[in-house]
Amino acid sequence: MSPLIDHTHDAQQQSWVASANALDADFPLQNLPLAICRRAGSGEAWRPGAAIGDQVVDLLALRDAGLLPQPAADALSGTENGTLNALMARGKPARQALRQALFAGLAAGATQQAQWAPHLLAQAEVEYTLPARIGDYTDFYTGIHHATTVGKLFRPDNPLLPNYQWVPIGYHGRASSIVVSGQAVRRPLGQTKGPDEAIPQLRPSQRLDYELELGIFTSQANALGTPVPMEQAEEHIFGVSLFNDWSARDVQAWEYQPLGPFLAKNFASTLGPWVVTLEALEPFRIPFVRPEGDPQPLPYLDSAGNRARGGLDLQMEVWLQTAAMRAQGQPHVRLMQSSFRHSYWTLAQLVAHHTINGCNLQPGDLLGSGTQSGPEAGQGGSLLELSMGGKQPLSLPNGEQRSFLQDGDSVQLRAYGERPGFRRIGLGMCEGQILPALTR
Amino acid sequence: MSPLIDHTHDAQQQSWVASANALDADFPLQNLPLAICRRAGSGEAWRPGAAIGDQVVDLLALRDAGLLPQPAADALSGTENGTLNALMARGKPARQALRQALFAGLAAGATQQAQWAPHLLAQAEVEYTLPARIGDYTDFYTGIHHATTVGKLFRPDNPLLPNYQWVPIGYHGRASSIVVSGQAVRRPLGQTKGPDEAIPQLRPSQRLDYELELGIFTSQANALGTPVPMEQAEEHIFGVSLFNDWSARDVQAWEYQPLGPFLAKNFASTLGPWVVTLEALEPFRIPFVRPEGDPQPLPYLDSAGNRARGGLDLQMEVWLQTAAMRAQGQPHVRLMQSSFRHSYWTLAQLVAHHTINGCNLQPGDLLGSGTQSGPEAGQGGSLLELSMGGKQPLSLPNGEQRSFLQDGDSVQLRAYGERPGFRRIGLGMCEGQILPALTR
Repeated sequence: MSPLIDHTHDAQQQSWVASANALDADFPLQNLPLAICRRAGSGEAWRPGAAIGDQVVDLLALRDAGLLPQPAADALSGTENGTLNALMARGKPARQALRQALFAGLAAGATQQAQWAPHLLAQAEVEYTLPARIGDYTDFYTGIHHATTVGKLFRPDNPLLPNYQWVPIGYHGRASSIVVSGQAVRRPLGQTKGPDEAIPQLRPSQRLDYELELGIFTSQANALGTPVPMEQAEEHIFGVSLFNDWSARDVQAWEYQPLGPFLAKNFASTLGPWVVTLEALEPFRIPFVRPEGDPQPLPYLDSAGNRARGGLDLQMEVWLQTAAMRAQGQPHVRLMQSSFRHSYWTLAQLVAHHTINGCNLQPGDLLGSGTQSGPEAGQGGSLLELSMGGKQPLSLPNGEQRSFLQDGDSVQLRAYGERPGFRRIGLGMCEGQILPALTR
Repeated sequence: MSPLIDHTHDAQQQSWVASANALDADFPLQNLPLAICRRAGSGEAWRPGAAIGDQVVDLLALRDAGLLPQPAADALSGTENGTLNALMARGKPARQALRQALFAGLAAGATQQAQWAPHLLAQAEVEYTLPARIGDYTDFYTGIHHATTVGKLFRPDNPLLPNYQWVPIGYHGRASSIVVSGQAVRRPLGQTKGPDEAIPQLRPSQRLDYELELGIFTSQANALGTPVPMEQAEEHIFGVSLFNDWSARDVQAWEYQPLGPFLAKNFASTLGPWVVTLEALEPFRIPFVRPEGDPQPLPYLDSAGNRARGGLDLQMEVWLQTAAMRAQGQPHVRLMQSSFRHSYWTLAQLVAHHTINGCNLQPGDLLGSGTQSGPEAGQGGSLLELSMGGKQPLSLPNGEQRSFLQDGDSVQLRAYGERPGFRRIGLGMCEGQILPALTR
């Protein structure tokens, strides 16, 4: 791997959008993530945008003004319906054409500046919707430290099941209740049964939690009945977003056997607005190495490319602000930090496994990575882990404690790649605030 | 309940389509199920049709010729896209308007006969696609006899889990791989591990099975965050189809803990072409009664209406034809028969439970009922049950044996209601044939 992966990663290249040049910016010229957005409150049609610094480029406005080279203009065809599905379906060449055009036009000194500038909007004035019509949503379970810690709580005698190191465990989730960052989430009612109760009751979840995940958008489809081999798996991935898989732990504990989580999860999941493409993540690709003594993946989950660069070193964080903190003007506090490098399976392995039986992935399907917890204490990607199942509440700086989420809590997920010689690439932020349960 | 529920159930009323008057017809004038179809091989646009005897009524042709009363014509608006979603979204009044118009126009002696007749096509000349764009697909597990028998095989010491009698157990399935009856299904590859093997291997499933289910199409949407109470639950159901939830038992056994079935199911599911509306099923509604000694449902899963008529007495059957039988011209043989009356939960309870946490159901979502097995030996709705986990192979009339499905096997599901004083109402047939696994 060259330190400069291609010219769109040249860290010296500044943008004529000044905010993109700050070293701590999530959206420098080298990122160029995509979203579906519009001017907030305008009621206008949803349309694709690309982030640059604190601005959004209105991509269809650029195209319609004849300011994009043909391959980039063609890449956008079909996104007029307010989704990125058509762009996702075209795969890597279209995505790259768009990236190259945006990089060229937004670079400092670009002759396009005067013509492009009117088509930028401040992110502060923009609202977002989901970046794609999500056909099917699958949630994986790639965090081995999460699986082990949670396994201990649900099955003390049997924390990590025998299949875990062989099977990229996954299950299907609910697409209809995925919402975009910023939308409040109502605490769900659910059937739960306490250890000392003879029969279950319907009540608001008392163990409401978040889960820190990457959301992985799929790209070109595979035909039903046709597995995707490891060597081609990344051709079927478009990019990644932040993803919060809200979970009602008490509901889950009572309902999940034998067919897995259902109402404990499907009341809502929150997706970050921005999709960062695989191309933007190039500098953070790392070798995929199994811990000493662990089994190697079966051949259908193995490839030379995956061993060389299947991993992804993205820092991931959870931040919390309680209602009391908000009332006192205190910002979110960071609860944890880990890296996606600890994921037990790579993105390519998720695609290869998902399709090995012929299952068809379609453009704009969403794969959740599963909760990304680090190996150390304090690196749990959920409150369930950080509070040891609620037994050791977290102390917040203002003196409040949290075992699980309280009404009014706001949870932010953040993620970014950092590497010497390269610009920081951020995924932005994914936020949701808890509303009180409905009364019945 | 009156023996004549409304005039569209008048068993004396014949149709001018003679084949609809046969007493063993699935599609008499009193049924009028809906599908999306076109003349086979024509490449024409998919369009909605209603079955009458061995014919299909081209509904948009009727409408466009000005032959439908306005409420029925309005009901079809939006189905020009080749899905029933728009009709489903309108709920019961639109569905009933269409039913009444078709009943009137197809009744023996109707003045419409001469004008309508040119808009009928023989079912033998028609091909089908899925009746709706299925947003999300949920599979339930309402067959307590299935759950008990299968539970014994997977967990001999703990067959029926403690939550079963309280929670309508369900999980999310894969929408993208649902295919319509008649499409062949390829035997999946999957990771499996035999009891004497040290490590798992990738290989074609050796324990491929069918599951006999009802597919339940949802109707009008509920908003995210808004549960549907029992009293209104049936307003959110459109009708039912036959549904085969193909299952790779060996893959399932190895992958399913702790998050449930995944690749064991999502390689394909087969839906019957016809959706029979709730209105057509009126004569077969029966009281919902829990077996003596079983707990009563929690209040959110209970209503007077559900107790009085939540159940559905539909006969359900599985038929099999092996490749050898086909070569010798032998028809399918019936493997079992049971009734949906044995379902442990009603359709209304599935909707009320699914939404109690605020999860939103959208028009055209599909709920699988779970495998419908009867209480007696020989009434299992899967080969897993009929062969006692493969230990007692079934003997077929031609001397072949089956523990699980072999390549070339064709599985047919059938279902119908029969009740004295009423016409038989059939769901038609749902067929799929097994193709050999891909070689790698």
